This record gives sequence, structure tokens and C-alpha cells, in this order.
Amino acid sequence: MREGFFRAVSTAEFTKLLRTFPPLPAENVPLDAARGRFLAGDVLAGEDLPAAGRAAMDGYAVRAAEVFGATENSPAYLDLAMDIPIGIIPDQPLPPGRCARIVTGAFLPQGADAVVMVEYTEDLGAGAIEIRRPVPPGENMLFAGEDAALGQRILAAGTRLRPQEIGMLAALGQTVVAVGRRPSVAVLSTGDELVPASATPRPGQIRDVNTHTLSAMVEAAGAEPHAFPLVPDDLPGITAALADATASHDLTLLSGGSSVGARDFTLDALRGLGADILAHGVAISPGKPTILASRAGRPVIGLPGQVTSAQVVMAVFGAPLLAHLAGDVAAFDRPVRTFPAILSRNIASKQGREDHVRVRLEPRPGELPLAHPVLGKSGLLKTLLLADGLIVIPADLEGYAGGLEVAVRPI
Amino acid sequence: MREGFFRAVSTAEFTKLLRTFPPLPAENVPLDAARGRFLAGDVLAGEDLPAAGRAAMDGYAVRAAEVFGATENSPAYLDLAMDIPIGIIPDQPLPPGRCARIVTGAFLPQGADAVVMVEYTEDLGAGAIEIRRPVPPGENMLFAGEDAALGQRILAAGTRLRPQEIGMLAALGQTVVAVGRRPSVAVLSTGDELVPASATPRPGQIRDVNTHTLSAMVEAAGAEPHAFPLVPDDLPGITAALADATASHDLTLLSGGSSVGARDFTLDALRGLGADILAHGVAISPGKPTILASRAGRPVIGLPGQVTSAQVVMAVFGAPLLAHLAGDVAAFDRPVRTFPAILSRNIASKQGREDHVRVRLEPRPGELPLAHPVLGKSGLLKTLLLADGLIVIPADLEGYAGGLEVAVRPI
Repeated sequence: MREGFFRAVSTAEFTKLLRTFPPLPAENVPLDAARGRFLAGDVLAGEDLPAAGRAAMDGYAVRAAEVFGATENSPAYLDLAMDIPIGIIPDQPLPPGRCARIVTGAFLPQGADAVVMVEYTEDLGAGAIEIRRPVPPGENMLFAGEDAALGQRILAAGTRLRPQEIGMLAALGQTVVAVGRRPSVAVLSTGDELVPASATPRPGQIRDVNTHTLSAMVEAAGAEPHAFPLVPDDLPGITAALADATASHDLTLLSGGSSVGARDFTLDALRGLGADILAHGVAISPGKPTILASRAGRPVIGLPGQVTSAQVVMAVFGAPLLAHLAGDVAAFDRPVRTFPAILSRNIASKQGREDHVRVRLEPRPGELPLAHPVLGKSGLLKTLLLADGLIVIPADLEGYAGGLEVAVRPI
Repeated sequence: MREGFFRAVSTAEFTKLLRTFPPLPAENVPLDAARGRFLAGDVLAGEDLPAAGRAAMDGYAVRAAEVFGATENSPAYLDLAMDIPIGIIPDQPLPPGRCARIVTGAFLPQGADAVVMVEYTEDLGAGAIEIRRPVPPGENMLFAGEDAALGQRILAAGTRLRPQEIGMLAALGQTVVAVGRRPSVAVLSTGDELVPASATPRPGQIRDVNTHTLSAMVEAAGAEPHAFPLVPDDLPGITAALADATASHDLTLLSGGSSVGARDFTLDALRGLGADILAHGVAISPGKPTILASRAGRPVIGLPGQVTSAQVVMAVFGAPLLAHLAGDVAAFDRPVRTFPAILSRNIASKQGREDHVRVRLEPRPGELPLAHPVLGKSGLLKTLLLADGLIVIPADLEGYAGGLEVAVRPI
């Protein structure tokens, strides 16, 4: 646990190590269970969407050339050929010089290439329709294949399925989708002072927090947390728990322990299990005493027992790793979405480590919010409750000056 | 469906109507199922956290007054009184003039009021400890009750439970939490042209998209979607489906139909069921032909059948309504989280309606991203696939100029 015992890698080096773990295999899931998942392969359109020309407005289907130049003062007059209900494709083409009454979503007859909105027309009776505006070809309608053309790549492998992608897949009839498997994550905590949250601590004991916060963060990242019982803070206990967890989970998180030799137990247990220790320490604050290992090709992250540190490490490294494992091709490359705020005061930072500072936001009407650093001793839970986000001070800076515009990452 | 048939209320008026629906009753859920839920009542600490003074660093527990003025050149010397393991409370007080070896997380003996980090000490052997830095009282330790004091309000009713709040509740032993019930949402689509996504459309038919996108958006908003079979686009069909949906769900969403008159079927069905029509039309684009009704005190939203419109209305009104129903006290008041971008070109907007424009973001190193309006005909699914967010042009403006910094709401 003592900082001098290991050389910390940079956050960039740590991320490079995380990238080496292969994404999980694909599985087929029903479309309605696929939200938030990542496509395992490209999706090609199996048909044209729409299948034929389709009205996007209520009005009259016309040949655009026949209403060219129509105005209020000099309207065009077309005879009504048909009334097109929704849900069928007209079996007769539109005869020249005529129009068809159509509703939004209905399919156009052969020959029609535009729709004049009903607002710019008048039904004069006896089948005569007055058209008071011209339309260019394609106006107020979709052409066959305009949304998706047979064989076209509609969605690329690695795309995250938002509601709109789910909608496109429904439109294409793809009710089963191949997506990356959701990572199964073993969440382990160790520490001789810990009791389960449901227990009453004896004097000197405290309740386990990390199992619950880390499980919640795993779930928020779209993966499946599996909370293990508290792990005894000794070599046999940690070895047994890590052997079990790494055998059946895609990622193992072990936080703690707080006892002096505990960090060594984790390392020794991993080495005893034949794991490769990839990193021991990362230049981040909080979170420096973090371990990264690989057992049978699956990642193990040893997180600090301190709750704030464990959460920062999970947010900065754990969440993108889970997205990467789940098939997000840009998990480590996509810029983190931040929003701007003005720093309320100076904050100092040690050079050589990336500092993640918790901030509380104070909204200000018509101005950027103020970001107040949440001060408080290491180990306090309440500093995280007060925080709305994190700001990052790069390793090569000594701090940020008050008044600076900073990028806040929501937490 | 024709725009002139009704008077649209403003988005502010529509939101005011949404506020009138009461939040759902509370339920008790296990802590690990409470992420994203909203607290039904204040949470008071049932005990002090920590229960007694606790070390936040490895080192030596001291009386701060006894190391006052200690320096490298003029250290203080204290005899080691005890070694404090983690997980117990020392039963002996710290004798004056002595110190106790302690690890992070261990409890301090009576009399000690600070911890000197191990880096600033030296164990000289034979029980003599050299202290080379002074510490103010409270340094590197937490006082009893510093995180939470018995009886103190720790979390307020209406708070959304993030992983850190889950952690605080675990620390307090609150493994069952009273939260607002998750809204159960009936998702209905109607339209004579629609077939289920799993079916092969006959000529003129298309697959149902809205049931899938809206269900995904409901789920993303933390509520429980219940997709209904397609509703026949006629008065008896819509009446039966709405009667069923509103009897057993906290919110009913009905999108479509596309046929002329369908909007009237929805209104007539609602009136026939004794519902109050609260709004018929809202000054938003897309999404104007939106209906809000109340049946037996539960909200019904009639959404446009057009997929883009339905999604915008769901994002702007549906998601905050669901949060409000689930117990989010600030659902309608919290500013929507946006991030800044530079508009790539002019966009025009009709005055008198709030325009929600889809934009694609182009990241630029060291500069704000460019927001490109996603152009495309109404009714195209692919415009939503290309969009990363929405920008809002207020009802009183005629548009935005290219080069302007705009606030992008992620979708």
C-alpha cells in the first residue's frame, strides 16, 4: 500500500494495457433487449425502405412537371384519378394530367413523383383539384430505397444501439440482433474490518461499501455485476476467491484491503494463480495503488479499498473497459462527454499524476455554472454525494487557476 | 392531423399540465436494485459514521499538541504504546507522550487526535518513533460522526440514487430503501399500414417502428415498457386498447395513426372513456399534433405517428414526466444537460414554435465540435441515426446563424 513500493504507469499506458483484452464473443438477442448493446457485425438492408414511393404529407400525388409554375394567381388544375388509402400499393399508375388524393404514409401510384400539401390545394368538386404551388420532384415524399437501399450498410459493427437504431432494425424486420455479450463482472471486496451492509458492525468494524457502489457502477456501464461474499483478507482467502471469480467472469474487480500486507496478498494470490501482473500502480489521484492483471486472458483489476479512489478508477478505467469488452469499437477513443463550467477557486495538483477532482456545480442563469471543488478528507463518503462531476488536471500541470473554464465529466 | 384543426399550447404550458399528475406511491426495494430510483423520503443517519475516530492514512496516531513544531532538523520523539490492527477499537487510551502505529481505516485510541503519515516518521527501534512533521488536530483521520452524525439528514427525499448514494446507504446499513415506484408504461401503436416488426409487409404495408423506439426510450428513462399488440386504427379498436392500457398502467403512450381521421379516433376514444383532454397540440416542431389527456388521474399521451416526431416528443416531455412520476422532485426544473458546439450553418425556424433540430457532431481537436444540422425529409429514419443530439430554437426566434455557439442535448 505504501506509494513508494511500486512504479506507477501513466493513465495512457494503463489504457493501452486495457486495450489488449479481446472483446467478448457475439450473441443473438431479441431486438427489444438490445438497447445499449453493441452490434457484432455490420447490418445490411435486406430490402428497400420504403419499398416504393411514399407520401410524407397529406395532399395530392402529382407529376411534378405538371404543376411547374403553379401559383395562387395562376393555379394548375388536375383531375382526381383516385383516392389512395393507407396500407396498399395502388395497382393503377397515375394517368397523365391527373392527381391522386393521398395521406401521410400512403404509397404513391406509378408515375407520381411528388406530393402537394393539402394546404396549397382546393377541391373544386366534380373531381377537379386546384393546385396553387409547384413542387420539385421528390417533394413531400420518400423515394423507394431512400431510407435504406437493398444491400446497403445501414449500421456498422460496434455501433451502440440507441432507441433510433432499434427503430431502424424494426423497420428492416431484424427482430433478432447479433451483439457483443454483456460482460459478467465479479465484484469482490476484502478487508478485515468489513462486515456486510446488512450486519451491525462490532466496535472497530465498518460496513462494506465498495461491493455496492462498484456493482451499481458495473450495472450503469451496461454489464452484469455478480457480488461475491466478503473475501477474508489473507492469502488463502484471496487466492480462493480470485480463482473462483476469474474462472467464470469476464472481469474481476477486487477492492481493498486496508491492512498493510493486503496489497501484497492480492499480488501474491494473482501470481500463485499464474496471472500476469500487467501494472502495479497508475499515475492517477485518487487511485494510484491500482493493479491490472490477466488470468487466462481475462482482466483482473485490483482497486484501492478507499471508496472514493475505487469509484474514480472504476469510472476512468473500468467503464470504458466494460464497453470495449461488450463490443464498443471506440470505447477508449471516444472523447468523454463533458460540459463547461467556471472553476470557483484555484486547485493545486501534484505534477506527474492525473488528478481527478470532484466538483459541485452551482447553476447560474445565463452563465456557465460555477464548479466548486468538493473539499474534504480522503475517506469521506459525503464528498462523493456532494459532487456532480469530476474535472481532470493533466499530469504535466501543477493545478488550475480559479476563473478558468473547465470541462466537467458528470458522475 | 391537419395542423389548422387545433390550437397548440406552448411547451411551457404543456409542461405545466404534466406537473399536475401526482408522483407514484413509494415501495421498498433492496438496496442493490435501487440504482437510478428516487428516494421517497429523507434518509437520516441512524448512527455516527465513522463510529469513532478513524485513520485515513498509514502512520502513527498522536496527540497533535505533542508534535507541534516537529521538523526534519528538530523532530519530536514519542514512545510506541501499541500497534493498532484494523477491525477493532483499541480498549486502552493513548498514554500522554506516546504514539500508536496505525493503518488506514483502523480506529484511533482515545486521546489521539491526528495521524502522522508514515513517510514523515522513522522507527528508531526499541519502541522509539521519530516524528519529523507537525500535524494539526484532525489531520489524516476522520472524527466520529464526520461523515454522518446520528440523526442528521444525509439524503433528501427525491434524490436520485447514483452509485455513491448507494454506497452511503450501505455504510448506514440501509439495505432496503423506500423509493418511488417505477412507472409502468403501456406502449401502443396504431395505423392501418402497420404490421409487427417480425412480419413481412404486404405491398403498401410497413413494419411498426414506434412500439420499439418508444419502449426503448421508456426503458432508458428508468421505467417499465409494456408493448401492446398493434391497435386497429378505428374507434372500437382504439377505445378498447386505451381502456385496457389506462386501467393498468401509470402512463399510456399511443402513437399514430397515419390515416386521416385517426387523430379524431384517439380524441373520441378518450372522450368516450371519460378522459379529460388537457391539450391537443403543442407548439413544438417536430411533434405538434400531440395530445395530452388524463383518465382516472393517469396521463395519456397521444404521439404523432411519424417516428421522428414521436421520439422528440418522448424526449422532451415523456422522459421528464416519467422521472416526475418516479419521484424526481426536480424532473421539470433541472436544466437539461447540454454541451457546447459551433453551428456549422444557418438554420431557419418558424416563429411561434420551439424547433428541435437534429445535429451531427464533428469533433475538432482543441476546439468545440461543429454541429451540423442533419437535413433530410420528414419521415426518414436515417436522419435520427446520423444525429448525435438536438438543439432547441426557442419559439420567439426565426433561427440561428452559422458560427453561433449552441447547446446540444445528447440523444
